[in-house]
This record gives sequence, structure tokens and C-alpha cells, in this order.
Amino acid sequence: MIAEEFKQMLGQKSVIRELSEYAAERAKQVGYENVFDYSLGNPSVSVPRAFTDKLIELASSEDSMAVHGYSPSLGITSVREKVAASLSERFGLNYKKEHIFMTSGAAGALAHALRAVVTAGDEVITFAPFFPEYTPYVHGLGAVLKVVPPDTETMQINFEAFEKMFSSKVAAVLINTPNNPSGAVYSTETIKKLAAFLSEKEKEYGHDIYLISDEPYREIVFEHVDAPYTAQYYTHTITCYSFSKSLSLPGERIGYVAVNPDCPDAALIITMCGQISRGIGHNCPPSLIQLAVAQVLDMTADLSVYETNMNILYDGLTKLGFSCVKPGGTFYIFPKALEDDAVAFCKHALKYDLILVPADSFGCPGYFRMAYCIPTEKVERSLTAFEKLAKDYQ
Amino acid sequence: MIAEEFKQMLGQKSVIRELSEYAAERAKQVGYENVFDYSLGNPSVSVPRAFTDKLIELASSEDSMAVHGYSPSLGITSVREKVAASLSERFGLNYKKEHIFMTSGAAGALAHALRAVVTAGDEVITFAPFFPEYTPYVHGLGAVLKVVPPDTETMQINFEAFEKMFSSKVAAVLINTPNNPSGAVYSTETIKKLAAFLSEKEKEYGHDIYLISDEPYREIVFEHVDAPYTAQYYTHTITCYSFSKSLSLPGERIGYVAVNPDCPDAALIITMCGQISRGIGHNCPPSLIQLAVAQVLDMTADLSVYETNMNILYDGLTKLGFSCVKPGGTFYIFPKALEDDAVAFCKHALKYDLILVPADSFGCPGYFRMAYCIPTEKVERSLTAFEKLAKDYQ
Repeated sequence: MIAEEFKQMLGQKSVIRELSEYAAERAKQVGYENVFDYSLGNPSVSVPRAFTDKLIELASSEDSMAVHGYSPSLGITSVREKVAASLSERFGLNYKKEHIFMTSGAAGALAHALRAVVTAGDEVITFAPFFPEYTPYVHGLGAVLKVVPPDTETMQINFEAFEKMFSSKVAAVLINTPNNPSGAVYSTETIKKLAAFLSEKEKEYGHDIYLISDEPYREIVFEHVDAPYTAQYYTHTITCYSFSKSLSLPGERIGYVAVNPDCPDAALIITMCGQISRGIGHNCPPSLIQLAVAQVLDMTADLSVYETNMNILYDGLTKLGFSCVKPGGTFYIFPKALEDDAVAFCKHALKYDLILVPADSFGCPGYFRMAYCIPTEKVERSLTAFEKLAKDYQ
Repeated sequence: MIAEEFKQMLGQKSVIRELSEYAAERAKQVGYENVFDYSLGNPSVSVPRAFTDKLIELASSEDSMAVHGYSPSLGITSVREKVAASLSERFGLNYKKEHIFMTSGAAGALAHALRAVVTAGDEVITFAPFFPEYTPYVHGLGAVLKVVPPDTETMQINFEAFEKMFSSKVAAVLINTPNNPSGAVYSTETIKKLAAFLSEKEKEYGHDIYLISDEPYREIVFEHVDAPYTAQYYTHTITCYSFSKSLSLPGERIGYVAVNPDCPDAALIITMCGQISRGIGHNCPPSLIQLAVAQVLDMTADLSVYETNMNILYDGLTKLGFSCVKPGGTFYIFPKALEDDAVAFCKHALKYDLILVPADSFGCPGYFRMAYCIPTEKVERSLTAFEKLAKDYQ
């Protein structure tokens, strides 16, 4: 009596995982330094020293249960208070602990946010290019995920297509800015236009429409880039955050749901998250990690290498004739492939030990994603390989 | 568009939580030492020093990503190998990493095990007294949880009632031994009888029936108690484990699913767990904790205090006229209340600052649970309070 639903999913092996396994194999043959593995979004910089120090201090505590004991189901109260205070100070909204729910990373945050405001039969709209895991998140609820085609000129929102696809069945709109995989950051203009449209539709349909803002890359924004905080522009915003990228600890599974304090149901949604946890096997992020992260909330790892790498790649690739929107943040860049079939293109790139991810699964065929969270010297050396690759298409 | 299903759940405030909040309030008035709080199953002993040392050693590593990086979706490979080796050595089954899936505690393990072998419309059978969180676990799948009434004479399985309730719709049987709340440990005789019955039913109905064995208290078994390892007796066993109690770190959310290696679908179920994780927001237990626990797999915290406390309580309570099956493990004892209505009894006990949990929500009305993971001297002092309580019923 094996559950067929999940058995079927086994067939769909992740392209990214396949590529990264290939890269690991290839590294054994030609040496790790000669494989330009741009496949995996694993941060390449160290956790801040302050985080490690706080973690060790906590672990050394005589009061074992104060550190390793059960967390309340909504998260450790002092941690929620600190997260609320930090968000309020930074973004000017009046967050209290009642608006914060601690989660196992952004995945945990999205799982709860979606369950809180979306039920079976509802529609959720997102925008290509998009993080492919949104599909199982939404399908698992019995809801429908509709993907708005990309605006490849700007990698902002394709409002024309969006407005056409919108209906009264839409319970939530799911955005990801700074964006994986495009690296684009939605501008204040984009967010304002989106907020105005949703407010209008709320009035027209007579029900709330939630904006779920997936922001694990919020702290990786490059110089002079306009990066608005979504919740400031729309009342029914549920912010989903992860410290994975900002603190370089993706394996420690720590993040939160923050509901806009101006949302009348904010506190209700948070207490509901505690109920949603029951049954899905979530039950709070690790206590030790909650407590340690709460000590370094306003810190980040040294993220500057990402901007350095981005500039090298953006300049190098555009010079070689690639077309590409300049990333405003994240550690991704998203150029157009040199042939229509990005899968064929990425396969061809393997000839030069360039591991690139075709963007078909991101809802943007013809493009490819590069995760440049790798050493800068390797990024530089990879340009020679790109030169050879580009020549093959001249 | 708030999801009504979870909003409705908010009404059902947990009795245990309510009592423990009352106990905390009362402690402020009369002093912590004067409140005998038996409500919460939070381990009272420290994590082993070796765990803390390994954790600090790992956290101090120069290679930040090797410690804090993403875990593969089934768990860190070296950790799965070590868990498999430890189980094989201890229980004589040939576990390999292919049979192990790392989870966020037992809750995560149960969420995956149930989803792997139970689908909407199926029935799951469990035995009273039972852990009340099984209800949302099973209902969340659209399946039906059937609870076999208790055998209060022995707190083993009431086979007569069980056999009557069994039907071809049963996809899985869920047991918890050593048991929360009764403290009973299923004997070899019980497990053999259960296994034989299920094997017979598998033949009769022509489909697999899984035995999901929830074993977070496996390491807390008292002297001379017969405590069989369930998977040794039944091929289709899925073992759900948590290190919360054995290592005293319930807040760190670490456990595993182990499928009997002799089960033909063992490796399939484990890879399916990786797919189940997608969408429910699970995504692996924390890397640092996985790595640290793997270093102390065959260790436990000093659990001896639980047996000491149990003996004091068992002797003291039976002398006062309470009837009670002697616990074989865990840190729970489960006496019969001195009046039919255990809720009224527990309310009355508050008069003497005894915080006891009525067992109605455990499917065993008329009984109450005591979690004696508190200091021994407090257990001793509490007997005076019990004496006063018992007098009121003479």
C-alpha cells in the first residue's frame, strides 16, 4: 500500500541535482579546480564569527534544558520578540511577537503561509522565472499554481499577462524578490503597481487576497539597487524569510513567517501556524539555532563576494555576446542561451566543464541559471571556457 | 480567505498546555519548589557532555559549509550510514543507509512514515492510551484513525477489541512502546501476537499492512523489563525514532525513519520520504545537529533518575491506594483517578499544587498521567500532597 502520489514523483529527478552529481564525478577526473560548477545555490562564504561564538556560548551553558529544551510551538518567545523588534526598526512597521512564527527555513515558512490562506481548489499565482519547488508546495494543498510568463526584457512582472490570468479564485500571489533564478529585484514601482492591482481586486471580489513574499535573498542586494520591503506596500502581506543565505547556514533550517502587523488577521494567522505545524511534522526549528540566530539578527556573513562575482560575470558574458538583465541581488545570473534549446546549450557547455542549469523548470525556456557562489578566481577562469563556448555558436 | 480547518483547531486548546501554564503562574505565587508540576514531558537531565563537546568541535570547524551547508534531502550520507550501522549492531537486522531517512524528531518521522504508506480514505489503527497528536497526523492525510480501547489491567494490547475493529481498509497500525502515557512496554509476547495477526491479515486481504513503531522512549527501559525491538518481529515495520529523550535534546528536532531492511519496499519508502518532504516544509533536520548526534549514537544522557522517580511514585501511590500498572519505561506513570471523572479529580488535585493530566485526551478516561521528569527530592515531597489528596476520597 505504497502511496502512489509520492512514488510517481520519484521519476522526476531534479535537473539541478543531476548536474551537480555530474559535476562531482567530473571533478574526480579532472580536478575540482577545473570544473566550473554553477549549478548549486549553496552559499560559499563562512557563517559570521559572532554566530559561532554565540552558538558555542549557548551550547556551553550549564542549563541544558534552557538551550536544548522544547521550543513553544510558535517559536521561542524571546526570539520572536527580537525578530519583531529588528523588523520594526528596519522597516518601520510595528511588528510584535504576535506577528512572528519561527520556521524551518523558507520552505517551512512557505508551507505554513500557504496553508494558512489557501485551501483546496483555490488558485495561487506566481511569476516566471520561479523557484520550481513552488509547484509541490501548492499542489500538496490541492490548490492550483498558475505561472505568469516572464517579462524577459526586465525580469520584472509581466502585468499584462498577470491581469489576464487573474480571477476571483486567486487566494494568494506568491513573489520572490530578489529572485531565484533571475537575480532581479522588484522595483518600488513594480511592488506599488502590484499592490494597487491586488487592492483593487480585493474590492472587486469582496475577499482578501494575500501576497506571500518569499525573501530568502533579502540581504543580498547590490549597490544602488532599489529594493523595497514588500510588506510596506500591501496590508495582506505574509513575509517568508530564511537566514540560510544571509548568515550562510542553509543546513540549519531557520527562518520565519512575519505577517504585516496592519493585517487585521495577523495574530490569527500566526496562531494558526501553530496548528498547521501539527500533522505536517514541522514542530519548530531547533532551539539552539533559534537562540543563536536571535543574537546576530542584524548581522550578515560577508556577502560582498557575490557582487564581485556578479560584476565579473555580467561584464564578461555581455562582452561575449550573451544577453542578460543585470542582477540586482542574490547569487544568480540568468543569461539567454545561445541557441533556442537551453537544455541542448547546457549539455554542450559541459564540453568546457561549465555546469549551467537550463531554465525550463523555472518556467523560462531558452535561458539558463548560474549560481555564482563559488570562489572569484574560479569565476574569472571560467570566462575562458565561456569564450570557447560562445565561439561554437558564431 | 483564512483556512477554516486550522482556524477551527484553535478552539481546542491543549489541556496539557493549559495546566502547565497554570503551574507556571502558581509557581510565581507560592514558589517553584512548592508546585509539583507533573504535566510536561520535557526531559529533566542534561545532554551528555560528549554531545556538547562534539557540537562545539564541529561549530569551531574552519570549513563552515561542511558543517552548516545543505543536507542532502534524505539526510547527511555519513550520518545515515552511522545510524544504520548502530541499529544493525544493536538489533541484528542488516540496516544500510538506504533504509534510513533523517527527520525533525519523531513528529517528522511519523509525518513521513504515514504519508508513505497511508492515503486518503485508508484506516490507521492505534491503541489507547495513545499520544493525542496522532489524531492530526492521520487526519491531515484524509485518513481515519481508529483507536482500540485500552486493556487497563495490563496496558498491553486489547487484542479482542483490536481484531473486531480490523478491516481490509487498514493500511497501517501505529504503536508506541515504551508508551506515552502509560509507561507500559509491550512484551515480546504482545509484539509476536501482533505480528502474527498482521501477517495473517496481509495474506487474507492480499496487501501489505505496515506496522509503524513510534519509539522515542526506546532507551528509557527499566531493569529486567522485556523490551523487544519491534522490527525484529515483523517485516513491514517502519521505526520512527527521536533522540529527544535519549539524549535530552527535545528542542533540537532530530530523529529518523528506519524501514526494516527485509521489507521489499524499504529503499523505495526511504526515497519516497525525500519526495514527501517537498511541500510539507520539512527539508531535513539541522546539519550541525545531525553531525553531532552521529558522534554519540550509542550514548544516552544519564537516564537513571527516571527509574528512581518511578519506583518512589509507584510504591508511594500504590500504598496510598492508587491502582496503577507498574511502568516498564518512559518517564510517565498512569494511575487510575480516585473518582470516575479524571478531569474533576485533576482539578481537585490543584488544591495541593499537584499538576496532573487527565487521560481523556489519551483515550483512557478515568486515568491520569504524571510526567516524573522532575527532581527526585520534589517527587518525594509530592507524596505528602498525594496523601492529603487521597484522604479527601476516603
